[in-house]
Amino acid sequence: MTTKYGFYYKEGYDDPLCIDQTSVKQFIERLSSPPTPFLLYSFEQFRHNIDTYQQELKNLAPIRSRLSYSMKANYNPHLLSILKSAKVMLTTVSGGEMQLALSNGFEPSSIIYNGNGKTDESIEMAIDAGVLLNVDSLFDLEIILEYARQLNKIANVLIRVNPNLSDTNVHAYNTTASKTSKFGTNIDELEPIYNLIEENHDKWIRLYGFHCHLGSTISNTQIITECVQKLIPLFDIKRFPHLRLLNIGGGLNIDYKRYAQRTKNDNNDDIKIPTIEDYIQSIKEPLQLLPNTIELIVEPGRSLIANSCILITRVLGQKSTGSIQQLVVDASMTECIRPALYQAYHHIDTINSLSTDERIPFDVVGPVCESGDFLGKQRCLPNTLKRGDFLAIFDVGAYCSSMSSNYNMRPRPAEYTLDEHEHIKVLKKRETNEDLLRSFYVE
Amino acid sequence: MTTKYGFYYKEGYDDPLCIDQTSVKQFIERLSSPPTPFLLYSFEQFRHNIDTYQQELKNLAPIRSRLSYSMKANYNPHLLSILKSAKVMLTTVSGGEMQLALSNGFEPSSIIYNGNGKTDESIEMAIDAGVLLNVDSLFDLEIILEYARQLNKIANVLIRVNPNLSDTNVHAYNTTASKTSKFGTNIDELEPIYNLIEENHDKWIRLYGFHCHLGSTISNTQIITECVQKLIPLFDIKRFPHLRLLNIGGGLNIDYKRYAQRTKNDNNDDIKIPTIEDYIQSIKEPLQLLPNTIELIVEPGRSLIANSCILITRVLGQKSTGSIQQLVVDASMTECIRPALYQAYHHIDTINSLSTDERIPFDVVGPVCESGDFLGKQRCLPNTLKRGDFLAIFDVGAYCSSMSSNYNMRPRPAEYTLDEHEHIKVLKKRETNEDLLRSFYVE
Repeated sequence: MTTKYGFYYKEGYDDPLCIDQTSVKQFIERLSSPPTPFLLYSFEQFRHNIDTYQQELKNLAPIRSRLSYSMKANYNPHLLSILKSAKVMLTTVSGGEMQLALSNGFEPSSIIYNGNGKTDESIEMAIDAGVLLNVDSLFDLEIILEYARQLNKIANVLIRVNPNLSDTNVHAYNTTASKTSKFGTNIDELEPIYNLIEENHDKWIRLYGFHCHLGSTISNTQIITECVQKLIPLFDIKRFPHLRLLNIGGGLNIDYKRYAQRTKNDNNDDIKIPTIEDYIQSIKEPLQLLPNTIELIVEPGRSLIANSCILITRVLGQKSTGSIQQLVVDASMTECIRPALYQAYHHIDTINSLSTDERIPFDVVGPVCESGDFLGKQRCLPNTLKRGDFLAIFDVGAYCSSMSSNYNMRPRPAEYTLDEHEHIKVLKKRETNEDLLRSFYVE
Repeated sequence: MTTKYGFYYKEGYDDPLCIDQTSVKQFIERLSSPPTPFLLYSFEQFRHNIDTYQQELKNLAPIRSRLSYSMKANYNPHLLSILKSAKVMLTTVSGGEMQLALSNGFEPSSIIYNGNGKTDESIEMAIDAGVLLNVDSLFDLEIILEYARQLNKIANVLIRVNPNLSDTNVHAYNTTASKTSKFGTNIDELEPIYNLIEENHDKWIRLYGFHCHLGSTISNTQIITECVQKLIPLFDIKRFPHLRLLNIGGGLNIDYKRYAQRTKNDNNDDIKIPTIEDYIQSIKEPLQLLPNTIELIVEPGRSLIANSCILITRVLGQKSTGSIQQLVVDASMTECIRPALYQAYHHIDTINSLSTDERIPFDVVGPVCESGDFLGKQRCLPNTLKRGDFLAIFDVGAYCSSMSSNYNMRPRPAEYTLDEHEHIKVLKKRETNEDLLRSFYVE
């Protein structure tokens, strides 16, 4: 029998929600009245996700491949040491992220710097360090060449291509390769970029490959297959002899609704969420056409970290408004903006067994003065829930902490994990009022 | 001729965008290559908005009234000293905001603490200090009474009433008094709250009045009129002899589209945005029925501060994607999430005169790796705009800085103003990478 890891329910127990081998309730008791909300990570789950990707990528042999973590999903530096040990690359989207990657000892050749609007300072940093840059557009290339000349160095680049493909089930904000997307250059309009690279090739620039990223929360692997099919013909090694990287981005969705039946929520009808295995298998066939000199890069964020973290919140009270029963909790849109911004589902459930209590539908709302501050609508939870009871909000590892705000002067929460000896490790301190005000006092 | 103040275009000049009596271009030159984006405040505009409210409220005489600033719109502490000098009250929505108000020397009786989910610590702080609390629900009242008993003090409260009224033109996230809203107690269901207050009256609690807040970006003053009409009959002074405050909340919209014709954007059809004068006049008639012992409180946020601040951003480049021309700028959803979250309009325009250049429609997008990162769609701007040119994003004083995030590891921007001697005053330092990482390093 395999040892369980991550967050799961041990059915039949009084405190069924577990992190790895420990009950979440026991974890909370060991913290002794921690300020809520707080984030709790399972690094075992995170390591397992990394391992799954790396194993599946190995199964693509003889195609060589590398995994790169999309840091914008969650830039907690404690994640980086795990990634580094596992020899995962980092995909960064700002000077700040790139600097954090470099200062954590990642090799420049293991860092990709991507973005539709790069600042001068960050382009200079990338070229100077030898980081791989994604060329987003003609204007982006021009600035890259300018700094390569200034620094008297060669810029190592990939071209971000827009293949005009998108998953129609994805929220518009998570689609990044529709025809009018702000990202990359249309696959039919690459010639001006090719020409400018050719003029400066081996002098100021080297073209190492192509990058494409179709968006986020993708459940339709068919479009990933099509994307690979569209990108392979671009590898004109006669014209650009350094070509050796095919970066197909990330964006795989996770099964946010896997526990939905517990709260009687619709389990997403007929959209099947592919596993990491499904995802990698879906590109196996089209990759057969890839020249064997070319290495594949995949750069997931969400599917590496989202399910490795829960948000623990306390119930503040119940109230009824019209026909709706509201469950007010102390977590909010400031820690988890995804429900407000993308109408996203995060599973919300009890941490202890209350199976004999009747479950009724609640709107789970936060304390922020804003109607957009909800965490879930119509979730069936025990009608006995009262002030002080703990709830878990699932799958908040990606795009929650990294998108958090101080709206309503709310301090951003603490982040914890259990280390290998099952000791509590603080991954982020809860902000204080002083932290929130530090930048305002200047004299 | 009156002196102009705030942000306006001085037509016919080369650098027509002004802050008070100074051109914005000159202001930027005096900063000498400041990192963009940054926020620029006109305190003259802010003072003028406060003054307009206070003058209009005086016109309601013999009805007595007080202005209260809704701090969640923008909690920059430098605004508080202006508000304090003008004897404006503060409406706070968290322990953090309440503490900031108290530490800035506001009298507890000039502070209102409002919220549907108050923490124990903040309720204790409010009662101990003597801050006015809005009772949101029965459970909220029970905790308030518990802490009043523990502290052996009297809690001074208003009841937040939901009159079931909403402006149908308002985004759902900005509506706070529809029947199923999470805020307040339904006007027909107050009896349990009354009873519990009566049982403890003058011992642990005093009911001073009623509060209602219909939401934000309200352009239909008719619902404010109806709200006042619905609340006045609640003042049963025989039953609750301390009743003396009618707090009608805030929520007045501002004319975000007043310059829209410059960029050929639809000027909002037939929705007329009421002025502060229109707003106050709209409640004059129903207030005639108010007993003269009752004082009115209005608590605007947006209409006090939004138009007192612009976001200065630099153009990073132009690119075309499909049929869309993209203008990439260095501001993003991290400084101004309102377009992504509410599909809100913020006017975006040049700071200098480029009137002879052809204007073409652009999607103005930021550098954040997210399709929701746009600032404006289809804005007609000069086709000559190039990397380094400055643009102004208008009316960002409310719900921008206070909702800002560090997504993509972006430091939150500096905030400036001109003091009375036209010297540059830093109101907030730009965050550094160290600021972003401080909470993560714990040992």
